[in-house]
Amino acid sequence: MPAAARYGDPAAKLDAINDVLRVQLAHRSVRRFGPRDVSDDELAAIVTAAQSASTSSNLQVWSVVAVRDPQRRARLAALAGNQAFIAQAPLFLVWIADLSRVHRLAERAGTQVGAVDYLETTIVGFVDTALAAQNAAVAAESFGLGTVFVGAVRNQPEEIAAELGLPPHAVAAFGLAVGTPDPTEAADVKPRLPREAVLHRERYDVAADAHIQAYDERLSAYNARFGLDGNWSDRALSRLAGPDSMAGRHRLREILERLGLPSR
Amino acid sequence: MPAAARYGDPAAKLDAINDVLRVQLAHRSVRRFGPRDVSDDELAAIVTAAQSASTSSNLQVWSVVAVRDPQRRARLAALAGNQAFIAQAPLFLVWIADLSRVHRLAERAGTQVGAVDYLETTIVGFVDTALAAQNAAVAAESFGLGTVFVGAVRNQPEEIAAELGLPPHAVAAFGLAVGTPDPTEAADVKPRLPREAVLHRERYDVAADAHIQAYDERLSAYNARFGLDGNWSDRALSRLAGPDSMAGRHRLREILERLGLPSR
Repeated sequence: MPAAARYGDPAAKLDAINDVLRVQLAHRSVRRFGPRDVSDDELAAIVTAAQSASTSSNLQVWSVVAVRDPQRRARLAALAGNQAFIAQAPLFLVWIADLSRVHRLAERAGTQVGAVDYLETTIVGFVDTALAAQNAAVAAESFGLGTVFVGAVRNQPEEIAAELGLPPHAVAAFGLAVGTPDPTEAADVKPRLPREAVLHRERYDVAADAHIQAYDERLSAYNARFGLDGNWSDRALSRLAGPDSMAGRHRLREILERLGLPSR
Repeated sequence: MPAAARYGDPAAKLDAINDVLRVQLAHRSVRRFGPRDVSDDELAAIVTAAQSASTSSNLQVWSVVAVRDPQRRARLAALAGNQAFIAQAPLFLVWIADLSRVHRLAERAGTQVGAVDYLETTIVGFVDTALAAQNAAVAAESFGLGTVFVGAVRNQPEEIAAELGLPPHAVAAFGLAVGTPDPTEAADVKPRLPREAVLHRERYDVAADAHIQAYDERLSAYNARFGLDGNWSDRALSRLAGPDSMAGRHRLREILERLGLPSR
């Protein structure tokens, strides 16, 4: 019952399901990997799936850097919150919100791309990168691979840009570690908020928050299975308490400006 | 040969493929819909697929408003660039970067979520919304439905927020029209940049731009099939020329601030 695991609710079920949804619903973040490499054929297919996602006005303002070199993965792990699984996964994909390609187009054409200086275009860059990367993650999982997204590449974006040789107007949006799941990892499908908490009909209804209490109980039970404390609300509030809880990312706006994405 | 269509290149092929990738690679934007409705069972499954995507620190800072009411869809169409297919599709999903839920959590707990004031958290909102929505689009397409993303809900975000009754700290990130594809629509799988233009190994290589010329020729040929002019480079440069080419979205930063997402 994939819906029951997804919601941590034995009564949850779906009346429309197929093999594509079964792959999607079975997603869990994998942070311990077995020794098998990701083949170049798999990588090519994963990137083609990523390119098949929608992209605003077909601008395709993203790129991906595939990192296999163990030393580089170790350096990236150190820059991204010291997360050892980045060094352990055979493949680390760094997804780039890439406004540099259109800047180079403009330089070659002797023209300007003034829109790139606005927050709207930075957001298009991050959104298009995310649409692509989610297709990549699902494609990888359809091959039996495991993945985990890594937002911590935004802890030190300038150092990551230097390590990857990014040109101006490009920034690492997030990473995706890819490899074969180690079945001994203590982790499972993490329950999400009840569907009714996030799905609104016709207009937004703040009364949907009433579903959070049941979720807090389900997530506490899930966390307890893995020796962790806390419910969803407490963890979310702790994570968002203020700039000190952001691992340096409160500086993102000024760093993006220095990297050539000024968010006007 | 799904890869050949994806790249507009008869020689393109994949040596790793399966039924999940076949659905992903067959994506095209659908802007003309048949009369069949999207069932509530399909909608529930689509949202469960969306919730199965990764989310930063499990914060789940998104919501979705499912709009079926024809009058509301007509008003949303008018606010989003007068795109008639929004009124014509049986279902219009408006994806919300939703920092309001954690704000309400904080109010009830008598605490603060200071991190929400920073650009980083706005970007987490848009990225998590995009990861979810891409899973939704693939799920819908796996049911034989057609979809198209609508960035134009960012042309007039305050008017969209009022129409949907969004609380403070929430903004429509993009829409997704969903329905049964009308097979008479003159459209096809749109070719993307050659894989080698976006996939870098170990470090970013600006020489990958050499692949753009072949793509410009392929996209010109694709456009000509549908009576359209122009190659990719010219269209991208035109779209990004400056604030006047942004349909009002150059104001997004100040509008987000007024909506309670101040992007500090």
